[in-house]
Amino acid sequence: MMKENLEKGILLISCPDKEGIVAAVSTFLFSNGSNIIHSDQHSTDPVQGHFFMRIEFSHPHLNDQLAVLKEAFDETAKPFKMEWSITVSSKKPRLAIFATKEDHCLQELLWRWQLGELHADIAMVISNHLDFKELTENAGIPFYHVPVTKESKPEATTEHLRLLKAHRVATIILARYMQIIPEELIHLYHNEIINIHHSFLPAFIGGNPYQQAFDRGVKLIGATAHYVNAKLDEGPIIEQDITRITHRYNVTDLKRHGKDIERIVLYRAVKWHLEKRVIVHGNKTIVFQ
Amino acid sequence: MMKENLEKGILLISCPDKEGIVAAVSTFLFSNGSNIIHSDQHSTDPVQGHFFMRIEFSHPHLNDQLAVLKEAFDETAKPFKMEWSITVSSKKPRLAIFATKEDHCLQELLWRWQLGELHADIAMVISNHLDFKELTENAGIPFYHVPVTKESKPEATTEHLRLLKAHRVATIILARYMQIIPEELIHLYHNEIINIHHSFLPAFIGGNPYQQAFDRGVKLIGATAHYVNAKLDEGPIIEQDITRITHRYNVTDLKRHGKDIERIVLYRAVKWHLEKRVIVHGNKTIVFQ
Amino acid sequence: MMKENLEKGILLISCPDKEGIVAAVSTFLFSNGSNIIHSDQHSTDPVQGHFFMRIEFSHPHLNDQLAVLKEAFDETAKPFKMEWSITVSSKKPRLAIFATKEDHCLQELLWRWQLGELHADIAMVISNHLDFKELTENAGIPFYHVPVTKESKPEATTEHLRLLKAHRVATIILARYMQIIPEELIHLYHNEIINIHHSFLPAFIGGNPYQQAFDRGVKLIGATAHYVNAKLDEGPIIEQDITRITHRYNVTDLKRHGKDIERIVLYRAVKWHLEKRVIVHGNKTIVFQ
Amino acid sequence: MMKENLEKGILLISCPDKEGIVAAVSTFLFSNGSNIIHSDQHSTDPVQGHFFMRIEFSHPHLNDQLAVLKEAFDETAKPFKMEWSITVSSKKPRLAIFATKEDHCLQELLWRWQLGELHADIAMVISNHLDFKELTENAGIPFYHVPVTKESKPEATTEHLRLLKAHRVATIILARYMQIIPEELIHLYHNEIINIHHSFLPAFIGGNPYQQAFDRGVKLIGATAHYVNAKLDEGPIIEQDITRITHRYNVTDLKRHGKDIERIVLYRAVKWHLEKRVIVHGNKTIVFQ
Repeated sequence: MMKENLEKGILLISCPDKEGIVAAVSTFLFSNGSNIIHSDQHSTDPVQGHFFMRIEFSHPHLNDQLAVLKEAFDETAKPFKMEWSITVSSKKPRLAIFATKEDHCLQELLWRWQLGELHADIAMVISNHLDFKELTENAGIPFYHVPVTKESKPEATTEHLRLLKAHRVATIILARYMQIIPEELIHLYHNEIINIHHSFLPAFIGGNPYQQAFDRGVKLIGATAHYVNAKLDEGPIIEQDITRITHRYNVTDLKRHGKDIERIVLYRAVKWHLEKRVIVHGNKTIVFQ
Repeated sequence: MMKENLEKGILLISCPDKEGIVAAVSTFLFSNGSNIIHSDQHSTDPVQGHFFMRIEFSHPHLNDQLAVLKEAFDETAKPFKMEWSITVSSKKPRLAIFATKEDHCLQELLWRWQLGELHADIAMVISNHLDFKELTENAGIPFYHVPVTKESKPEATTEHLRLLKAHRVATIILARYMQIIPEELIHLYHNEIINIHHSFLPAFIGGNPYQQAFDRGVKLIGATAHYVNAKLDEGPIIEQDITRITHRYNVTDLKRHGKDIERIVLYRAVKWHLEKRVIVHGNKTIVFQ
Repeated sequence: MMKENLEKGILLISCPDKEGIVAAVSTFLFSNGSNIIHSDQHSTDPVQGHFFMRIEFSHPHLNDQLAVLKEAFDETAKPFKMEWSITVSSKKPRLAIFATKEDHCLQELLWRWQLGELHADIAMVISNHLDFKELTENAGIPFYHVPVTKESKPEATTEHLRLLKAHRVATIILARYMQIIPEELIHLYHNEIINIHHSFLPAFIGGNPYQQAFDRGVKLIGATAHYVNAKLDEGPIIEQDITRITHRYNVTDLKRHGKDIERIVLYRAVKWHLEKRVIVHGNKTIVFQ
Repeated sequence: MMKENLEKGILLISCPDKEGIVAAVSTFLFSNGSNIIHSDQHSTDPVQGHFFMRIEFSHPHLNDQLAVLKEAFDETAKPFKMEWSITVSSKKPRLAIFATKEDHCLQELLWRWQLGELHADIAMVISNHLDFKELTENAGIPFYHVPVTKESKPEATTEHLRLLKAHRVATIILARYMQIIPEELIHLYHNEIINIHHSFLPAFIGGNPYQQAFDRGVKLIGATAHYVNAKLDEGPIIEQDITRITHRYNVTDLKRHGKDIERIVLYRAVKWHLEKRVIVHGNKTIVFQ
C-alpha cells in the first residue's frame, strides 16, 4: 500500500566513469530509506569515459530531511569526484517566457502549463511588444512590456534583470524572442536559457532560416531547441525535429508548417529540462527519457 | 586502459517490485568484480508492481567463472523471487530462418548478418519451396527444402523438429513463412519464434492484410513483429512501424511499400531479441533500447 | 500584373474514366476566361475505372457569373456523366463544433481558425457540458449548452437541428464529442460530419481505445479522422497518424500523447475538407493535397 | 477493354506560366489519339511565374509514331516557349553505378533493380577497388576496376569516359563513390549524375559528416540525394530523410544508422529520376510523385 506522505526526488550525477558507482549510489539510497522509482545512466566509455546518472526516488520525509540527506550523500560522492544535485519534486522551478510577435510557441507553453504538463510556475511573460498582454493576463500570469531599441538595450537588460530577480526566476524560455541575449544574462543563467531556432541546426544559422531553406531547395525543414551560450545558435542542442516539404511550398508555407515543429520541439525541450532529464556535458546534452 | 581479457555479460531480471533491488544487484556485481556498462530498468508500479532489469556488465573472467557467478547470484535473487538469466556475450545463439517465396525479409536478415549487425549464427534456412536455395547457399548457410502440403504437414513438422534439434537451434525467425506453426513447435520454442505480420496489429488479422487495408481505405499501412503463441497473430508484439499511403496506391503498391516496413521491423525485432533486450511479461513486451 | 478583381473557384469532378476528360474540361475553362492555378486528378484505372479531378482556377468575375458558368459547364459535363460542383473561394462554409469535456481538439480548431488556417466561419460550439463556455465566448463564438441524457436525447436532437438550421451550418466537427450521432443528423449532413477517433482504425473500434491499446501492448498509438455514417467508427477515413510509445507508458500516458495526434489529425482533416480537397467514393476518400 | 498494343509515354514541360497551357496540351494529346493516365503540374506563381507539367499518357502506336508526334507537338509548344521532352516508357535508360568500399547503397540498388523497381538497365558498375567485383558479376552486370590515385586521375577519367560512351550510359549513380567528379564528366552528364551525401545538407558539407554531427551533438542525422554540379555538395537536392539519434550513439553507431537512411534516400532519388518525375529548375527540383 502507498505510504501517504511519500515524497519524490531526482538525483543527477556526472563524474568520471569508474567501477562501483551504481553500487555505491543505490546502496546509499536504500540504506537511507529511499526507493528507486526509475534510473537511467550513460557512459561515454566504460574505460576512462564520463558517467551520467539520473535517479527518480521516493523517500517518506524528503522535504524535511533534504539537508541531512545531501550532507550524507556528499560522503558517497567525494571519492568518485561527482558533480551532483538532488531536486525535490514538490518544489516547482519558476519560469520566465520571453516573446515578441509570434504567438505559437507562447500559446503552446501556456496551454501545456494549463494542462499540468509543465512542472513549473510561470512567473511572467516579458515582451518587447504589447501584443500578448491580454493572452498572458487571461491565463493569470503577469505580463511585462519592456521595449527594446538599439539605444535602449542597456536599460532593457537592467529592467530584465530586475524583473527576473524580483520574481526569483530560475529558467528563461525564449519563445521566438527575436533579440540577441546580452552576455550578462547568459552568464547569470548558465544552461538555464532555452531558445527555439527555426531550422535544423547547424543548417541555416542566423536570420531568415525559412528563406534560406527555400533558396537551397531542401526537402525537409526543422526546428532546434538549444541552451543559449555566447555563440549565436551554437549552444548545446536539446531537441530537434523536422517535417517534410515539397516544391509546392513557398516561404509563407514553410513558415506556417515550421510553426508546428517549432512549438512541439520547444515544448519537449522545456518539459525535459523541467523534469531534470537534461545534463549538459561540453557542448552536448544527455537527455534521459 | 582496457583490460585485455574483459568479457561481457547480460543479466536479465524480472520480479515483484520492492525496495532495495537495485542496491542488492549492483552491490553483488561490484563485489564480484563486475563493472556495470549499461543498465535499464522498468517498474509497472513502484508499489505492488512488477520490476524488470537489464544490465550489461563486464567481468575479467566471465566465461571461466560463469557457473560460480550464477550460483552466487542465486543467493541474491531468492529473497526477491527473481526470475533471472545471465548470458555471455561471446556465445552466439543459433538461428533458423523459415521462408517461402517472398525474399525481402530473408534478404534483409542475411545482409544484416553479413554486416555483423545480428548477434547470432544462422544455422540454416528452411523453406517449403526451392526458390531461395542459391541465395542461401551463396551466403554459406545450409538450405533445407521441406515441402508442406495439407497431407504432409505432420511429416514436415517431424522433419523440422529433427533439423532444429540437429543444428541446436535456439530461435526461429519466420521471414514471411506463410504457414501455420504447429503447437508442438510453439510449445518447444516458447517466446523464441518471431513472426512478421504485414499489418499494424490488431488491425487486419489473418490473410491478405493489404487487401483488407485497401478495402478499408486506411491512410497508413504497417507491419508487426511478434512472438508466436497459440493464437494466430495475437502473440506479444515486439515492434511495429508504419508508412503513409495515399488514394493513388492499389493493392500491388501497398504490397511493394509494405515490404520496406516489414523487413526493417523484423530486423529490429530480431536484433533486439538477440541482444537480450526483450522481456515478455504476460502478453506484452518490455523492450530495453 | 495581378488583375485586381480576380476571384478563385474550385471545380470538383467525379465520373467514369474515359478519354478526353481533361481536354474537355481545360478547354471549357480556358474558353470561358478562367485560368487553371492548380489541378489534381486521379483514376482508379484508366480502363473502366473512375476518374476524379480537382481544379483551382481564377476568373475575373466569378461571383457575378457563377450561375452562367455552371449552366454552361453542364453541357460539358453531361456526355461524361460527371458529378461535379463549383465552389467560390470567397464564400466561407459555416461550421458547428460539438465538444464535451476534452478541450485539446476544440482548442486546436479555435486557434487554427484565429490564425486564418481554416477556410470557414465557426457558427457556434455546441456542448452537453458547460466547461467550454468561456473559452468559446472569449473567441467571439456563440456557445450553446444542450445537455444530453438517455431520456432527453430526442429533445437534444431537436434542439441541435434547430440550432444548425438557424445558423445555416454546412459542416459539423465532432471534437471528441463522446455521444452517438442520431441517424437523422447523419442523413441530413451526409459526408459533412467529421469525427476524430482516438485509435488507428480499424484497430480498437468503440470505447476506451487507449485502454484497449495498452492491454494489447502495441508499440504505436494513433488517431483517425473520418466522416460519420450509420456504422460506428466505420465511415470513410480522411486522415490518420500515429506516435511511437514504449512499455513505460501507462494508460494515462497514452491518453496524453494521443491528444497530440488527435488534434493534429482532426485539424488536417477539417482543413482539407474545407478546402474541397476530399472526395468520398464508396467508403473511401480521395484526398488531393 | 485494354487495347493490346497500348504504349505509354511521359511528357515533361517547363515554360513561363500563362493562361491556356493545360487546355492546349490536353487538347493536343486528345486529338492525337492519346489518353492522359496521370497528370501533375506546378506553377511557382500563376502571374509571371514558371510552369511545370508531367503527363503520363497512353497511345496505341507510340513507338512507331514518336517522331511524328514530336514534330506535331512542336507547333503547340512554340507559342508558350516550352522546354519539353517526350519519353517512351518501353525504352529503359542505361545506368552506370560508381562505388568504392561501402556496399549498402550498391546492394540496395542492385536488389531494387532485381525486384523490377528501377526502370533502367544497369550497364555496369565502376569502382576504384576490387571489393564488389563478385557481388556485381553475380548479379549479371559487368564490373570495371578503374583505380584512381592522385597521379592517375586524368587517365582514370579518360577510361571512365571511354566506358560510359562504349556502354551508351545515360545516367551515373554515385553510390558512396568517395571521389571528386571531374568537371568534364559533370558537364557531359548535366543533371544526370546523382550523388548521395551522408548528411542533411546544407549541414555538414564535406568530409566526415557523421563525425561533424557527433561533435555538434545533433539529435537527428540525415542523408541527401542530389544532382552533382561544379560545387561540392551544392547541387539541386532531389530527396532527403533523417533518423533520430540519442546521446548513446557514438560515431560508429551514427554511421551504421545513417546507412539505412542513405540507401533508402538514394533509391528514391534514382527511382524518381528514372521515372522522369524530377525537373531541375535553377538550383532546385520539382519532384512529381
